[in-house]
Amino acid sequence: MPSKYRNFQNSVPWILLFLEVVLIILFYFLFSDDDAPVSTISYPAFQDVSHMVIFGFGFFLTFLKRYGFSSTGFNLLIIVLGVQCSVLIEDLLELFFSFFYCRITKAAVSMTAVVISTGAVLGKANPVQLILTAVVEIIAFHMSRWINTTSLEVPDDIGMMHVHLFGAYFGLAVSSHFSEPSPRTEKNASTPKSDLLSMLGTLFLWVFWPSFNSVLLKNNKTKAIYNTYFALAASAVTAFVLSLLTAKDGKFRMTDIHSAVLAGGVTVGYAANIIEYPWIAMILGLLASGIGVLGSYCLQRCLHPALKIHDTSGIHFTFGLPGVLGALAQVVLSVL
Amino acid sequence: MPSKYRNFQNSVPWILLFLEVVLIILFYFLFSDDDAPVSTISYPAFQDVSHMVIFGFGFFLTFLKRYGFSSTGFNLLIIVLGVQCSVLIEDLLELFFSFFYCRITKAAVSMTAVVISTGAVLGKANPVQLILTAVVEIIAFHMSRWINTTSLEVPDDIGMMHVHLFGAYFGLAVSSHFSEPSPRTEKNASTPKSDLLSMLGTLFLWVFWPSFNSVLLKNNKTKAIYNTYFALAASAVTAFVLSLLTAKDGKFRMTDIHSAVLAGGVTVGYAANIIEYPWIAMILGLLASGIGVLGSYCLQRCLHPALKIHDTSGIHFTFGLPGVLGALAQVVLSVL
Amino acid sequence: MPSKYRNFQNSVPWILLFLEVVLIILFYFLFSDDDAPVSTISYPAFQDVSHMVIFGFGFFLTFLKRYGFSSTGFNLLIIVLGVQCSVLIEDLLELFFSFFYCRITKAAVSMTAVVISTGAVLGKANPVQLILTAVVEIIAFHMSRWINTTSLEVPDDIGMMHVHLFGAYFGLAVSSHFSEPSPRTEKNASTPKSDLLSMLGTLFLWVFWPSFNSVLLKNNKTKAIYNTYFALAASAVTAFVLSLLTAKDGKFRMTDIHSAVLAGGVTVGYAANIIEYPWIAMILGLLASGIGVLGSYCLQRCLHPALKIHDTSGIHFTFGLPGVLGALAQVVLSVL
Repeated sequence: MPSKYRNFQNSVPWILLFLEVVLIILFYFLFSDDDAPVSTISYPAFQDVSHMVIFGFGFFLTFLKRYGFSSTGFNLLIIVLGVQCSVLIEDLLELFFSFFYCRITKAAVSMTAVVISTGAVLGKANPVQLILTAVVEIIAFHMSRWINTTSLEVPDDIGMMHVHLFGAYFGLAVSSHFSEPSPRTEKNASTPKSDLLSMLGTLFLWVFWPSFNSVLLKNNKTKAIYNTYFALAASAVTAFVLSLLTAKDGKFRMTDIHSAVLAGGVTVGYAANIIEYPWIAMILGLLASGIGVLGSYCLQRCLHPALKIHDTSGIHFTFGLPGVLGALAQVVLSVL
Repeated sequence: MPSKYRNFQNSVPWILLFLEVVLIILFYFLFSDDDAPVSTISYPAFQDVSHMVIFGFGFFLTFLKRYGFSSTGFNLLIIVLGVQCSVLIEDLLELFFSFFYCRITKAAVSMTAVVISTGAVLGKANPVQLILTAVVEIIAFHMSRWINTTSLEVPDDIGMMHVHLFGAYFGLAVSSHFSEPSPRTEKNASTPKSDLLSMLGTLFLWVFWPSFNSVLLKNNKTKAIYNTYFALAASAVTAFVLSLLTAKDGKFRMTDIHSAVLAGGVTVGYAANIIEYPWIAMILGLLASGIGVLGSYCLQRCLHPALKIHDTSGIHFTFGLPGVLGALAQVVLSVL
Repeated sequence: MPSKYRNFQNSVPWILLFLEVVLIILFYFLFSDDDAPVSTISYPAFQDVSHMVIFGFGFFLTFLKRYGFSSTGFNLLIIVLGVQCSVLIEDLLELFFSFFYCRITKAAVSMTAVVISTGAVLGKANPVQLILTAVVEIIAFHMSRWINTTSLEVPDDIGMMHVHLFGAYFGLAVSSHFSEPSPRTEKNASTPKSDLLSMLGTLFLWVFWPSFNSVLLKNNKTKAIYNTYFALAASAVTAFVLSLLTAKDGKFRMTDIHSAVLAGGVTVGYAANIIEYPWIAMILGLLASGIGVLGSYCLQRCLHPALKIHDTSGIHFTFGLPGVLGALAQVVLSVL
């Protein structure tokens, strides 16, 4: 469809430019310069989150050989747009005093939702769709956070952690509106080299996940860090175990490991600061990873074709189901 | 020319060894061990700069498929030589008391000039030329800094920021002495994989740029960090916009984005700590990126063939013109 | 041998799962939750080591084109298993009070030994052998450390630094039990792309080495950092010099540089905090790198075929010999 394509070519740059100009104007009117000296979040902590979102997620999604540049490039575009939106929405919603690093770190954390959703529609959505989805999702996410904080009285530092859950199911919902690409095209193909670059992103995410889970907490940061570390360790071991058990040829399958090593970090995100002993975190990590690999083995064969969901990078198993498990674990642990 | 090539083979290692031995002897006589406990620069801040210079710039220049290893390898060689020279020159020039991290961080920051210049002659200069250029440039840069500080009374923490401008125009001056490689050779060719590795370097530079702009400042560090962040965000969005507007086939061109996403960081480098509101930084980022992409679109067709300049990795548009804009902006903002 | 292969397929996941369950049970009984607020090791310092071990070493070993994913993936598996073992062994051996970051950082540092050993048998050992080697080695390493601390009265912060020496010679000992792969197979082949990814890992290790050498020290951290930096700088220059002198075609050989740039960091690891002036560190770096490149040039032709050792990634020259030099240097410097 060349005419449609020309439309796209004409509209994208103007939409982007319009958004950027609107953002600058809103910044002029809204952004109060509260360069307050005291904050619970330090620059290195913010830097870790920024690194993780831009670099880690950028390369996490490079496994499709035709979308290497798209995923790193668009990832950057969507994040910088989203962080600017987020900082403004934060300013509008909160109204009360908030420090710079705190606000920009929250903006970077909430962008995780958008990046996760992008993973579900990679190679199906065009740039206009991706950009509009990003803007709509970031507004929806902040609304949901605002409802959580005001109606359900969830503390803000923990309330942020439903970012994975929100991102995964928003992404799946968006994904169900796109037709599945024919399996014969090379759009879904990955090469050993692109898998390796994707591993680069995965290792980055793995290393920075303890920072991510602890950055917004007001106390028990150390506990959150080591619980996350041990949960990630247990889920990495389980990912290798289950990848081998479900494989037919006795080889590790890259895709399983790729998606399941991070599941533990997602699951303990909710309760990282209230888990007393590391063995609880390790069991959660083991379960999360199990859900990830077995889910991808079973569900992708049974449920998804029925629901007509095509989930390009398996976000349902990396972020969706472990997020649900984490939320349940938090409720159980809070009651105990 | 096999005889010339043998000459090269014979001379390079001895030149390097001679330089290293001279450096060790000079360190023996000159370097005073002032392991003072108080410094405004912390180890993580130094580490960020070191990471950025060695890893970020190393991979930033890997986009030529035949020069992947050259650019990462030589980059390391030139930086370690240059940092050792720089620390000594700093010792000679300053004479007054200076702390370790401060001195070694300044050395790493000033190496940026050399690395940027290297970008202009990549694939044209041989190793001997690169090494001699690096040593000459580092001495010239410190002279220019010394003149700035003593004659023009520029504060030292801001005076360092002309590093991009100096590097870009020194590189272009050196580049004009080399003949342009014939466009048919594969020396200028890039592949999708090498572009992706170059994106890796670019994202690294993007993430660490706020550290770079704030590391030498004595006050207003937080302000410098967030102004740089928003300038980078605005210039990333603009890079995508203009890349699409100047392209004929409606696709993002890797080269534009590669060079323009960083322009905002270069521009606000001068004035990052005196910009009052983020919207000013965003406008500067937008303009810097516009100059980068439009400059590369227009100038490369008109001006450069006339001046016989061949600029391999477009440093004129990434570092040169945004640096000029930044210097102008600083003057205007200081007057206001 | 399909039956043997089926055996492998059947046993690996169960061995891993068994190990993980045993670890969780031991954590339940042994791990005391000493979330003490005061520690000499900060989170960013731990993060640097974690980054270096998982990301740096993972990509350091990707130079064999057929083992890209194996090296990054198995590296993660072995490290997470090893860190969990190490934390427990630390708990058993030390008995006295130890802080969390201190313990987990020590665990990550001691995993370096295992990762180095892996480098010697890469492409020859199967996963079961790798996992069992890792568990045996981590126990042996902690025994050797315990003997060092109790019998030889080596201070704990320096005693840790024989990690490279232990890893290299343990790896060589294990490697001598495997037959050398036939040189015609592509198992030993590297491609320009895999070399470049390996350079990525090497640069990461280079940048983080000062953190590694200083993280466990109780005083003189700054001195250790800059001595390590200058030793690394001198050894990088020497690596380029000697690579060119030993090459027949006048080109830099990737393998030499890859292995020799890090030698300086290994050598000063022992004495980094007692070296008074940077020129001593620079001379040590120069010697270490010389031993690395010349050793790889001479020994690989003479000694190794006689001893029937096949050292896939040259760990003997990167970590073994420089470690011996460093131990000698420490003795000499302590006596002076």
